[in-house]
Amino acid sequence: MLPDRLRSLTYLLSRLPGVGEKTAQRFALHFAVDQTDFAAELGASLSQLAAHVRSCTQCGNIAELNESGHALCTVCSDHRRDTTLLCVVARVSDLLAIERSGAMRGRYFVLGRLLSPLDGIGPDELPLGKLHAQIRASGATEVILATPPSVDGEATALFLARELDEAGLRVTRIASGVPHGGDLEFADQITLGRAISGRRGLESS
Amino acid sequence: MLPDRLRSLTYLLSRLPGVGEKTAQRFALHFAVDQTDFAAELGASLSQLAAHVRSCTQCGNIAELNESGHALCTVCSDHRRDTTLLCVVARVSDLLAIERSGAMRGRYFVLGRLLSPLDGIGPDELPLGKLHAQIRASGATEVILATPPSVDGEATALFLARELDEAGLRVTRIASGVPHGGDLEFADQITLGRAISGRRGLESS
Repeated sequence: MLPDRLRSLTYLLSRLPGVGEKTAQRFALHFAVDQTDFAAELGASLSQLAAHVRSCTQCGNIAELNESGHALCTVCSDHRRDTTLLCVVARVSDLLAIERSGAMRGRYFVLGRLLSPLDGIGPDELPLGKLHAQIRASGATEVILATPPSVDGEATALFLARELDEAGLRVTRIASGVPHGGDLEFADQITLGRAISGRRGLESS
Repeated sequence: MLPDRLRSLTYLLSRLPGVGEKTAQRFALHFAVDQTDFAAELGASLSQLAAHVRSCTQCGNIAELNESGHALCTVCSDHRRDTTLLCVVARVSDLLAIERSGAMRGRYFVLGRLLSPLDGIGPDELPLGKLHAQIRASGATEVILATPPSVDGEATALFLARELDEAGLRVTRIASGVPHGGDLEFADQITLGRAISGRRGLESS
């Protein structure tokens, strides 16, 4: 019934994260019914992305390929960055969130995955070689572990802390506690426990 | 921070139905982070769709452009169809749903919109000229009004019934009642009212 082109498009769209078969068909019909200009525009945009965007070879952030076929992201190519600081994150979206906060002046390294014994992801699956290379290349002296405060994120941070301690680096972990604007009454026990144990002296500056 | 190509892709993706800025960024990152092959494949698929898929010039269903630049859908070009029956639907997705049921042997006409005084859509916005042309072209003698049983759908069906009655056509409306497998206890009053008033004699066949 449906033209083959629409069926194959529906199949591709259903591979998007969080998109099922029904939503994919709704998207595909949206394109096919009087929105073929939009389809052409989005198609060209995706082709452009595929041709020009790659992972940064140093940190794993999103980067544009330059003329010599090399991908270096805006952070790694920014020479005003504090190269002594290296922030390790799980995903590119975490890197972008930290950048939006404006609180990080150094460079990054994207792990791409976390230790997860249940999913069969052990230490060998972590890109340790690339991490050490980025530390050496940037000359970092402090590594901030900004993996999420989840079970997998904590396990990965602990593992990396041990690994990097041996290399003689200062290793720090992002603070965990009650979020800004959060209500103590509704905070869970672990968060409150961390907020208490991670308390800081109030300096009158 | 984000490469321009990713930002423009995010903007385009946010124009998909039901997709907000956050979801659009998630999709865009999904493409950019190690899924550039997928982006290329989907981009090519969308470009193909844009180049080859149009609305059927007769009924408004989705159709492939043929060599002579003409778009005729699989239903309108199927000569085994009962051309005396014409089913009027609001959207292409309704047409596809009826086709899946296998209960309709005739041709279709897609209105593309319903009467909706609140949105400023009056009788002049309905494609009446094209509907009459399709009725004449197919030689239909019965028009089944399959607009949805909503306020706008009923208003449109009533309007079309009056319009087509004058043309001497048999005009019918799809049945409304308790759906198959539905529970009478939880059916709303209007649905139950329609199920009673639309009751049929039981023929022992």
